[in-house]
Amino acid sequence: MNSFSFQNQTNIVFGQGTVNQLASLVAPYGKTILLVYGGGSIKRSGLYDEVLAQLKSIDAKVVELSGVEPNPRLTSVNKGIELCRSEKVDLILAVGGGSVIDAAKAIAAGALYDGDVWDFLMHKAQIKDALPIGTILTLSATGSEMNGNAVISNWETKQKRAFGSQHVYPRFSILDPTLTYSVPRDQTVNGVVDIMSHVFEQYFTLTENAPLQERLCESVLLTVIENAEKALENPNDYDARANLMLCGTMALNGGLISVGTQNDWASHGIEHEVSAIYDIPHGSGLSILFPNWMKYVYKERIDRFTQFAERVWGIERGSKSDDELALAGIEATREFFNRIGAPATLAHYNIGRDNLDVMAREAVLFGPLGNFKKLQQEDVKQILELAL
Amino acid sequence: MNSFSFQNQTNIVFGQGTVNQLASLVAPYGKTILLVYGGGSIKRSGLYDEVLAQLKSIDAKVVELSGVEPNPRLTSVNKGIELCRSEKVDLILAVGGGSVIDAAKAIAAGALYDGDVWDFLMHKAQIKDALPIGTILTLSATGSEMNGNAVISNWETKQKRAFGSQHVYPRFSILDPTLTYSVPRDQTVNGVVDIMSHVFEQYFTLTENAPLQERLCESVLLTVIENAEKALENPNDYDARANLMLCGTMALNGGLISVGTQNDWASHGIEHEVSAIYDIPHGSGLSILFPNWMKYVYKERIDRFTQFAERVWGIERGSKSDDELALAGIEATREFFNRIGAPATLAHYNIGRDNLDVMAREAVLFGPLGNFKKLQQEDVKQILELAL
Repeated sequence: MNSFSFQNQTNIVFGQGTVNQLASLVAPYGKTILLVYGGGSIKRSGLYDEVLAQLKSIDAKVVELSGVEPNPRLTSVNKGIELCRSEKVDLILAVGGGSVIDAAKAIAAGALYDGDVWDFLMHKAQIKDALPIGTILTLSATGSEMNGNAVISNWETKQKRAFGSQHVYPRFSILDPTLTYSVPRDQTVNGVVDIMSHVFEQYFTLTENAPLQERLCESVLLTVIENAEKALENPNDYDARANLMLCGTMALNGGLISVGTQNDWASHGIEHEVSAIYDIPHGSGLSILFPNWMKYVYKERIDRFTQFAERVWGIERGSKSDDELALAGIEATREFFNRIGAPATLAHYNIGRDNLDVMAREAVLFGPLGNFKKLQQEDVKQILELAL
Repeated sequence: MNSFSFQNQTNIVFGQGTVNQLASLVAPYGKTILLVYGGGSIKRSGLYDEVLAQLKSIDAKVVELSGVEPNPRLTSVNKGIELCRSEKVDLILAVGGGSVIDAAKAIAAGALYDGDVWDFLMHKAQIKDALPIGTILTLSATGSEMNGNAVISNWETKQKRAFGSQHVYPRFSILDPTLTYSVPRDQTVNGVVDIMSHVFEQYFTLTENAPLQERLCESVLLTVIENAEKALENPNDYDARANLMLCGTMALNGGLISVGTQNDWASHGIEHEVSAIYDIPHGSGLSILFPNWMKYVYKERIDRFTQFAERVWGIERGSKSDDELALAGIEATREFFNRIGAPATLAHYNIGRDNLDVMAREAVLFGPLGNFKKLQQEDVKQILELAL
């Protein structure tokens, strides 16, 4: 394995009813809270009222930013930054899924930055400080509740970009699995694909001699696979929801499961280009792209893919060649995504060849994409073509 | 799984040559450093000179506490506390294995406490604050480099007791696997047993529905088993040493691999009583006691032990009964300990029946021991008898 440093300061508070700890978690940070949320599902579920009651109990002043989009947009981020400045916000409280939390991170960093927050997404400036963030997670997917990553879409320039910083790790995150009972089926599916994709990005690596990290990745994958259909069949299955929630957090909590290994992230890069133009759900984009990325790259290190087939999908080698075994593992991934109802082709969203060149060009804007195989513009285009 | 909260703020800096980051890691905390170390192996290895050079480069004033014992003693802790007060120490830098780090934690808490530091060990007082601690780890074993636990021996009262606190998590820990190349064979063995025992204490639980946590535990165990003999055969095998070091840290980094489950810790409790009187190495005590604890308790939840046999030791069920399969897993543990040269009986240290009653009584001083099976004084005595 490679040298690394790792630190993750987020305090996670996990379990049914843990929202009742919100007041005591918020109190140390001050009285003025920017409450960030999405389309209003937290009002329908009653969570909004519960949050306000908790904040009222400590006499907090609550400023609201609602309507944050599923692919959170720069326009929402800028609104939040304005509110932080005009209202002198002490803490940003994100209540929602990864999109809401990502927006909160960009707001937190932007509020203490003199320039344009988009600079951070375009790698033109480094985050040096940020307002503190707390979260209440309502969707198992991105891991944003325990890491320093955020993805923001700029709808004017049709760009979807990411940043990462130690300064925007949430100070605390409340993870109550019962808050995910009401997540619609398609969003649960997208979350499952997102969690698994985060592990894939770390698991398929050229780094040698990282047996513990490989097993930690496999542990998350096996547990997601085991629990996804249970959660879909019975949305109120506490154990299944709790296992998925913990897997989502573990899959991307600052890279703990893959310390000292080089990650890939090419599939995420390609997906960002697709949803930058077509605004499709991130998890759906990954479900379409990842098996095709696998097919395109598996020969780079076929032993990673034979191990994946055997350990994650339980496929026995028997008389199979390396090639057959590796492809059987990729096919099992595709079949699992199909089984839970995740899309398999760009055609599912009526996406054709129109923008393949634009997407491929934007994907390599900062250089070749990924590490397992370094993808040039032409490679990206071929993967997109496989996904049509 | 149960509700839980988890936070681990330690910054781990891992890899060959990372000691050269010491100066920049120490600098934010101040100029007066209490350097805590053990019997002098760090002088023979050259690490001591390297540390002093790093500290000199930031004009630090270094105060020394050397000679911390393998089972660190209250007398050493009290010396350290005196030094912290008289020299107005800003940061405690522990260079060594778990004993040295544990002593540093007790010193850090005791220096800011008006009463007797032993109060913390006897649960008479709660730690409210502590001086900051940094560590350079030289032995893969206790996980103390990334948790808030410490075990201290009081040689006057023949008591060995533990405390845990968020306040004494190291702020940073430097983990350079090459620093463990010179660890003697028996200490490497004790470290391996200690790491595996920490996982056992978390893995054998009555908590239902924690499949990810079970797999994380199994991941650590499989990786330790795979690398232990490599490190023993070739002490300078970087990969084997690095894997063991990462496993040691992951095995007990604040309980990450077992969040939301009830841990046991009975075997540690019994071992502490044995070494409180006989001052044997902690890892050796665990190697003697753990297989006997397993044999004594396995029927409480035999499925935990059959899973252990199958997943960790790769034993196929075939026509075996649950009982036979569970016992085969326990036997495989015993055989592995034998194979790496860890002791199997108290007789190995010429320990007989003399103090069995005293040890059994002290072990349950604060009530029944453990959770997988709640052990009364008589149970502890029977386990000790099995271990004779």
